[in-house]
Amino acid sequence: MANEKETTRVEAFSDGVFAIAITLLVLEIKVPKSEEHMNNGQLFTSLIDLWPSYFAFLLSFIAVLIMWINHHGFFKYLKTINSKFLYANGFLLLMVTFIPFPTAVLAEYINSSAANISSAFYCGTMVLISIAYNILWFTAGYKRALVRDEISDSLIIKIRNAYWFGFFVYLASFIISFFHAISGLLICISLWIFWVLLDYSKMGIKPQTGNPHKHL
Amino acid sequence: MANEKETTRVEAFSDGVFAIAITLLVLEIKVPKSEEHMNNGQLFTSLIDLWPSYFAFLLSFIAVLIMWINHHGFFKYLKTINSKFLYANGFLLLMVTFIPFPTAVLAEYINSSAANISSAFYCGTMVLISIAYNILWFTAGYKRALVRDEISDSLIIKIRNAYWFGFFVYLASFIISFFHAISGLLICISLWIFWVLLDYSKMGIKPQTGNPHKHL
Amino acid sequence: MANEKETTRVEAFSDGVFAIAITLLVLEIKVPKSEEHMNNGQLFTSLIDLWPSYFAFLLSFIAVLIMWINHHGFFKYLKTINSKFLYANGFLLLMVTFIPFPTAVLAEYINSSAANISSAFYCGTMVLISIAYNILWFTAGYKRALVRDEISDSLIIKIRNAYWFGFFVYLASFIISFFHAISGLLICISLWIFWVLLDYSKMGIKPQTGNPHKHL
Amino acid sequence: MANEKETTRVEAFSDGVFAIAITLLVLEIKVPKSEEHMNNGQLFTSLIDLWPSYFAFLLSFIAVLIMWINHHGFFKYLKTINSKFLYANGFLLLMVTFIPFPTAVLAEYINSSAANISSAFYCGTMVLISIAYNILWFTAGYKRALVRDEISDSLIIKIRNAYWFGFFVYLASFIISFFHAISGLLICISLWIFWVLLDYSKMGIKPQTGNPHKHL
Repeated sequence: MANEKETTRVEAFSDGVFAIAITLLVLEIKVPKSEEHMNNGQLFTSLIDLWPSYFAFLLSFIAVLIMWINHHGFFKYLKTINSKFLYANGFLLLMVTFIPFPTAVLAEYINSSAANISSAFYCGTMVLISIAYNILWFTAGYKRALVRDEISDSLIIKIRNAYWFGFFVYLASFIISFFHAISGLLICISLWIFWVLLDYSKMGIKPQTGNPHKHL
Repeated sequence: MANEKETTRVEAFSDGVFAIAITLLVLEIKVPKSEEHMNNGQLFTSLIDLWPSYFAFLLSFIAVLIMWINHHGFFKYLKTINSKFLYANGFLLLMVTFIPFPTAVLAEYINSSAANISSAFYCGTMVLISIAYNILWFTAGYKRALVRDEISDSLIIKIRNAYWFGFFVYLASFIISFFHAISGLLICISLWIFWVLLDYSKMGIKPQTGNPHKHL
Repeated sequence: MANEKETTRVEAFSDGVFAIAITLLVLEIKVPKSEEHMNNGQLFTSLIDLWPSYFAFLLSFIAVLIMWINHHGFFKYLKTINSKFLYANGFLLLMVTFIPFPTAVLAEYINSSAANISSAFYCGTMVLISIAYNILWFTAGYKRALVRDEISDSLIIKIRNAYWFGFFVYLASFIISFFHAISGLLICISLWIFWVLLDYSKMGIKPQTGNPHKHL
Repeated sequence: MANEKETTRVEAFSDGVFAIAITLLVLEIKVPKSEEHMNNGQLFTSLIDLWPSYFAFLLSFIAVLIMWINHHGFFKYLKTINSKFLYANGFLLLMVTFIPFPTAVLAEYINSSAANISSAFYCGTMVLISIAYNILWFTAGYKRALVRDEISDSLIIKIRNAYWFGFFVYLASFIISFFHAISGLLICISLWIFWVLLDYSKMGIKPQTGNPHKHL
């Protein structure tokens, strides 16, 4: 199970799951029901009142997009995959497909007296996703099991530390949500900036340098 | 992050999102509920009464299909992509996945006394999509950052102007919707013909002239 | 827009739409609601009572699968595609994404006093799909515009006639549905056997005979 | 219909269906409705009370993932495919797309007085999926119709027996569900471990030994 085609197929399957999960998010936004004769003003108000749904949609869209970009960068470090990696990746996909649910809960309750639990539920999902990424990197980077030869040991440690850092920040956002929902969410969002900066393409690996297939 | 494989994967992910968004549109059409014993005549009437749903479905299907074809043509102009492009493309995909919602709102309210807001909401979404295409082209065409060598400067300007033209027409359709819903929608639709004519394949680039594998 | 990569991408996008449409069909089957304390016997009865949903699900699954296989075989005849083909294919995809709706209508009403209209609505959708296939083949086969050189003229006519035959049978099933719902559906289903037999792989074309890329 | 490209496209289509089915599972988990002013404690309780939904989601996610991995391994044994295989694969995909429905039924009723039927319905679906895999292997392995030359006869028998074993265990889980719902489900789950161990990559075939491009 250690050839290029294999890796490509797992990547394609994961991409499919990411693409579907990100597109299903919109189903969470419910059309305001026209119980009686609604006029323009009332529809306008109804659409504005849906702001928690738009907010949750935007939040999760960006989260899944960043996860996809990182997942993508991840695979560029691998020379091969094994069964352990396959199951670790499966756990990550499990959490990714789950995202529409905490998103819908957040949309429904962030502007209510149950805001804390909805925020904690959302941030808690992110904690689990963060654990999934840590496990995934562990299966790839531990004893250099699956990483390409040109990846330096220091880079492996750098990435590991970045994922651990992410875990602790998500954990903090989860705990803080119980006391102040919006603060918890803001910490959760702040991490996105971190993930964007973690962009693999900037982490010092020049793919295929000195490679005969230079332009592929 | 500047190789052919990279570009292909972003294109494949975008294609997936387009394909899913276009297929989810049908979920907006709700089966008439059989509250009592409905006979053939009543079901016939119920199915006819769903015309705003069919109309909105058709409208958005064509819109997403044209966007996909244009997005597709877009990539043929690129020699590479970078992080800025990735995020601009992400913003575009955000708007594409959002389309099923304004479509459902339009279906529910275009034939009601809240028609203006539903039309404005739909056209407003198109304004944002138009902005997304403008940004995308800016990241690609500005200072020829990502475009292929055989694309002339005049073609870059031609495309830029086409996207700006699109933006202003969508903006007009948005504003007019507040005064006359159907007129707003018609202007919105009229632009499709424009996009079809903007078909990249006819804009003077002959791909693979000379050495067919030069840019692969 | 006339190269191999182009054709492949359109094929991949169509495949995605087929795959999503076929998988969305299951959403039509609604879980029986547990209004009060339901026991095993009641749930068993409820699940049995859903037979029209299972039936409609099965019907449309097979229909979409056969369409996919035919669509697939279709592309093997093409040497290239053009803009007309792209829009004809778009019309076909429009109808394919629509299928979950008449399927849900059929499931809801086939076992009711509105059976005729639900059956006619379903068969009518098939008439439109049949028209879409006829148009698609016309854009490809007329004056041999897009077909490979090794396709004989007699084969082009054979396929054209097969699609016309399909159209008339679907039209018959549509008309008969108004008088006898089940007979209409049975005629509609009987055509599947025809499509299966139309299997392109058996229609006398040996792909890539004497071709240097023999095993691709 | 016997070339590499053909096989790849069927594999890609199947992958798409698996990816969509696995991602649709989350739609079964319904957001607790906020009928009145719900506070943090009440939302917390509501989310906990959804454990049957989480349980069913997890169950089916793992089931589909393992099926995908096995399906994937399956294709590595094939040198070609034929029409019979295509229809057998279609039957398997039919059952895979159906999974979200028994999953939703299980989520709704496993913690009720109708637990037996919901469990039997779920395990019964697995029996059908098991039959689908048996048929698929039969079309491939019988008289070595589609398997690669390097697959030994003893391996074909080994795999056949594994699928038969799976069938009987699922059948047992189905029957036992009528008497003790949880026991039935546990037997059903226990088989996952078996499927994981059946991992094709460990069954003694070394792909591409010798001439690496021999079969491409």
